Parts: sequence; structure tokens; C-alpha cells
Amino acid sequence: MIYLDNAATSWPKPQKVYDAVLEYMKKWGANPGRSGHTMARNAADVVFETRNLLCELFNADDPNRIVFTCNATEALNTAIKGLLKPNDHVITSCVEHNSVLRPLKKLRGKGVKTTVIDVNDEGIIDIEDIKKNIQGNTRMVILTHASNVLGSIQPIKQVGELCREKGIVFLVDASQTAGVYPIDIKELNIDLLAFPGHKGLLGPQGTGGLYVGEGIDLDSLKEGGTGSLSERDTQPDFLPDKLESGTLNTPGIAGLGAGIKFILETGIEKIRKHEMELTQYFLHGLQNMEGVKVYGPRDPSKQVAVVSINVKDVHSNEVSRILDGVFNIATRPGFHCAPLTHRSMGSLKQGMVRFSFGYFNTRDEIDAAIDALKAIQKEF
Amino acid sequence: MIYLDNAATSWPKPQKVYDAVLEYMKKWGANPGRSGHTMARNAADVVFETRNLLCELFNADDPNRIVFTCNATEALNTAIKGLLKPNDHVITSCVEHNSVLRPLKKLRGKGVKTTVIDVNDEGIIDIEDIKKNIQGNTRMVILTHASNVLGSIQPIKQVGELCREKGIVFLVDASQTAGVYPIDIKELNIDLLAFPGHKGLLGPQGTGGLYVGEGIDLDSLKEGGTGSLSERDTQPDFLPDKLESGTLNTPGIAGLGAGIKFILETGIEKIRKHEMELTQYFLHGLQNMEGVKVYGPRDPSKQVAVVSINVKDVHSNEVSRILDGVFNIATRPGFHCAPLTHRSMGSLKQGMVRFSFGYFNTRDEIDAAIDALKAIQKEF
Repeated sequence: MIYLDNAATSWPKPQKVYDAVLEYMKKWGANPGRSGHTMARNAADVVFETRNLLCELFNADDPNRIVFTCNATEALNTAIKGLLKPNDHVITSCVEHNSVLRPLKKLRGKGVKTTVIDVNDEGIIDIEDIKKNIQGNTRMVILTHASNVLGSIQPIKQVGELCREKGIVFLVDASQTAGVYPIDIKELNIDLLAFPGHKGLLGPQGTGGLYVGEGIDLDSLKEGGTGSLSERDTQPDFLPDKLESGTLNTPGIAGLGAGIKFILETGIEKIRKHEMELTQYFLHGLQNMEGVKVYGPRDPSKQVAVVSINVKDVHSNEVSRILDGVFNIATRPGFHCAPLTHRSMGSLKQGMVRFSFGYFNTRDEIDAAIDALKAIQKEF
Repeated sequence: MIYLDNAATSWPKPQKVYDAVLEYMKKWGANPGRSGHTMARNAADVVFETRNLLCELFNADDPNRIVFTCNATEALNTAIKGLLKPNDHVITSCVEHNSVLRPLKKLRGKGVKTTVIDVNDEGIIDIEDIKKNIQGNTRMVILTHASNVLGSIQPIKQVGELCREKGIVFLVDASQTAGVYPIDIKELNIDLLAFPGHKGLLGPQGTGGLYVGEGIDLDSLKEGGTGSLSERDTQPDFLPDKLESGTLNTPGIAGLGAGIKFILETGIEKIRKHEMELTQYFLHGLQNMEGVKVYGPRDPSKQVAVVSINVKDVHSNEVSRILDGVFNIATRPGFHCAPLTHRSMGSLKQGMVRFSFGYFNTRDEIDAAIDALKAIQKEF
């Protein structure tokens, strides 16, 4: 199988990720922070180390402000619902994932006001559209760092500056960038950073997190046992405990730590360079290919390693089915949980075939994908 | 290390659980339900198989009514917040975990009314206390199947009958019973069953679930990508998708499936018998031990394999510390995220030292624990 579905989850993981999960389960299987015994303390150390690694990666100072969640969706729900109150206004973009759009849809029913700004043909927002929509009650701007359909990288540095200047909370969805593109929460003025653990960060599924900036106080989405203030029936008000209830996915967090170590050791610039090269190589192969339409920036410097296409008017499901069944190539067709992106690009009927590359993909695999597309477009 | 902290998380897991997690990560690492390709379909099969195994274990009919969560805390939050509305009344007990008490505390601030009934010296509720507290607006009864501190098994069959008769939703917290005590959701009239995956079910941490009975419609705690109706920005209204947003902990769910298979193959009666024998053996060893106070039923037929004690007036933290440091025995001191249990038992100052056994514990390990306690009580 040639795996080109890394925007859904990265695969394979570095061997050390598998090793870390297994070692944790076999050796330190206990619950961190719940008991005083040696195994539990060692488990707590593993969790704390991963918090520290995330701080190093994102240039954050306080490991206690890294909250573990089971995926980026939970991180986004925690950030959005933990902050917004009735009559608050929020600005977001049409290239957001349903993990932003659906919680906002729900909050609209509870009196939260939303403005969804459009993107240009490349799938990139115009910061002027944010500026002109800011109102007195604008409490939050939510922006994906890069579209999960088009790969288009958004101008989050400028948006971060604008939000800081206006005193608006800035939430960034790093689902497609964490681990594959440099993120410095200070330089970018990010207040809340939601990230999955199992995509670019190379950890196992079932991991993710939310960085909560200084001065941001979020209401909890869930309450329960935290191992702290166990003698009280009120949720603790300090981080990370306030937002981390119940037993954590500690084997997953151990694996996530190993994934981040791999990234820090390899160097995020090297990972980014490799992914840009693969993207460039694929885009080059698609150039002038008859009957194939390419969406998004078509410029590796403006996008992450995600390229979506369509073949003539064939439904994307059909193309992906052939890529899988005939050519043994894994892609993702359909709507990618991003309905407004497809509405904006006019692909709500056909969907798109998404190719997404990772650090372990090779040029040979891209060649195979290009050859397959050439063969497919001839059939229709 | 002699591990007697199975009420926090079971350890070790059966070898096949480790194998399943690793095999999943290496072989089927893709996202179930998000793509059409072969790896994703195989991943979906693994998840569906675990749903089926849970149905078999709990005697449920519809695998789609098994919702995966990251732990029992999330399952309880989903059930409680998904059902209760302002002015609803809920009855629960003082032996609940903070994963019930803290969400209820929060909902009280939003107009939900709560009645917390007490327990007897054995840590068991009296169903009459539920009966006499039922009001016109009583919407839900929440009861732990067994106390996580005292091990005391609650009369859930009778409570289930009462709830069915009165049209009240019955939520059972099976954190201490799922996998080690028979649970038949039909026979017990359970509407909502919350369970962790990493305790008696022998799966990895980061797993859990909620069975949602026919006719129960819960509001979602989180919304996001579900892989279904991906072209819409509204959360789907069917199960399990409505309550399962974002990428699932699929390696964990694969491991959970292997854990449940181990239970079904071994037979839950055999597991229960072994744990009763260990409990009996430990209780026998504690009998007449000078300076040691034992809490709970002190009768294996009335409790799960959880026994809490105190040594004279020594703080439980100190006793657990010595058990760990000197005798290499892992227990859990303090308040076990169950403040009202400790208030009811008068142990809010001292806490308790909790011993909790699992299927892999042996009589020799119990002997070591008894010898250690004999030595400790002599020192004070």
C-alpha cells in the first residue's frame, strides 16, 4: 500500500513511537498522578516529559498550560465552548474543518454570533476581511493554520498581530501544521493552539492537545477525577487539571513524546523541506495532465503537503476507489469534513481526491500516483 | 512490584492486548470511516468488532449504540450533560466518583436539582431512600455499580426496576464492575452504562465507552468531523456518530477488543470467582489484625475486589508510601476522587489505603501485603 492519506493520520510512525507505547504499557501501565507509588510516579514523569517536549516544539514556557485531549476536535471544542458566551461574536473562515464549524453551529443556537469569511482561489483568506468584520463584541478569531483540503497556509502571523492589537483571543487549529511546519506561539501571538497528536506529530491516534495562553481562562468541557483536590467535589481551577478529567491516554502520550523527539532530532526544517519537495514533484507531474484539475495554491511555499484534485467530472469516490483497488494507493475522496471549503471551490457535488504526503513518503511513490492518474484519466 | 492498584487501572494486560495495539498501529494505522481505502476499511472493521464484543459482554443488541469515549469520565459527562436540563431533578448516592459529583456540581449552577442519598456502614444504599426522594421532575438516577473506595456493590437490579416503573432514566457507572462482574443491561433495566476500557475490561488507557439505550437521545458534548455527512456543517443525529467526533483512539480500541475477548474466553464467572477468593483471603488475613481498620462490607459476596483500610491513626499517604518504598507494593492512599464517600465514612482527614486486586494477582501477593501491614502496624 502506498499511503498518501497523511492529512487524516500519519502512517507509518517512527519505530520509536511503537516502542514507547509498548514499553509504557508493559512497564509503567499505572495511572499518573492518582497514586503515590513508584509505577504511578514514573507514569507521571512520562506525561510531564511530553508536555515539556510540546513546549519546546511550540516555544511555550509553561508545561502546565499544555492540556492533553483525545484529539484536536476535543481541543477545539474545549477552546470554543470554554470561552464563548451568548452574544459574543467570533470570526472564522470558510476553510475550517467541521471540528470548528459544527461547534460554532451549535453555539449559534445559544446566541453566539459568527462571521465566516471567504478565501481567494488559492484557498487563502484576506486579512482585510477579518479587519472589516471586527465588532465591539468580537471575542475570538478562529483560523486553521492550513486548509485540510487545499493545503493553503493562512497568514496567521498577521492575524495574530491584529488580534493582539485589538484584544481578541486568537485560536489556531494546527491540525495540518503541528510537526511539519514551524509554530512559535510567541512570535505568532497565538492564545490557543489546538493540535492532533497523530498527524504531523507522529504520535498514536487518541492523542491531541490544547495550548492555553497566559491570561486565558476556559470553562471546563468535562469535570471528574483529576487526582488533585480529590477530597473536594468541585473541579480544580488550575491547569492542566481543570481541563484534564479522568484517566489520560498515557500509552498514547508516551508515543506522542517519542514522535516529538523524532521531530526535534530530525529538525522541523528538514521535514518541511522534504514535504515541499514531494509537493513540488507531485504538482509538476500534474502540470498539463489532461483532464485533471488541481485545487489550492499549486505552490509548495504556500501550502502544506496536501494536494486535492479531480479527474474530469468523475466523482472523487470513484477515482479514490480505483486508486485503492487497482493501484494500491490510499487517498481520501469526498468532502474531508470541510463543507464550506467545497462550497467555496464549487466541488460540493464531486468532492475532491486528496493526496497528502508525509515525511516517510518518497519520490517513487509520487511517481506511482502520477502514473496511476494518467491511466485513470484515459479511462474516462 | 506487587501491583494492587487495579481499581485505578488494571495491570498487567493480557499479552494479546499489547499485541493488538501494536499490530493495529503497524498494520492498520489509518483512520476508520474517513476514507474509502483498504487500510481505512480494515481500521473500521477493528472498531466495529470491538463494538460487537461489548454488545456480547453487556447483552446489548445494537453495536451502534455503543459510543467510544476516551475514558469513563467522558462517558459520564456525555450522559449527564447530554440529558439533564435546568429544573430537572437527579438522584445519586454519596459513594459516587468525582466523575459524577463534579459534573453534577457544575449543573447545579445551571438549575439542575440534585439529591445525594447516603449509604449504610457497609457502603450500600437503601432503595427506600431513592423511592422517597422521587419527585415529579426526577429525570435521572445515577448510581455506581460498586464503590471505588469500599468495593460495595449497589442494588442496581432493584433500582433499575424502580426507574423503569417510574419512567426515570437510569445511568450506571460500571467503572469498578465492567469486565469483572456480570452486567446484563436488559435484565438490569440500564438505560445508560458508562464504562472505562482500561480497568476490568483489560484494555489500554485512553479507552472507555457509553452504552445508550433505545429511546434515549443525548445532546452531544462535542461536535466535529464524524466522517459521515461530511458535506454538512451540522452534527449528524444518528449514533454512534452524533457522540463520536474526531479521530478515535483506534489502537486503544483494538487493544480493548483483545481485552474483552480475553474476558469472554476466560469467562466472567471465573474472573469474579478468582477476585472473590483473593478478597476473602485478604479479609481473612486482616481479621483481628491489631490496629487495622477495614472499611466496606467485609464480605466478598457484597463487594468487588477493592478493600480499603487504615492503620491506627497514621495518614494513609504514609502507609502507602511505606508499602511502596519498603515492601514494593503499589496501593492507592488518599481520597480516591470520592470525597462524599470519605465524608460518609468519617475518613476525610486520614483518607484510606486502598488495595484493589485483579485477575492476575495471586495469593502469594496477598500474603506479602498482609505481612507488610503486620510489620507496619507494629511500627506505630
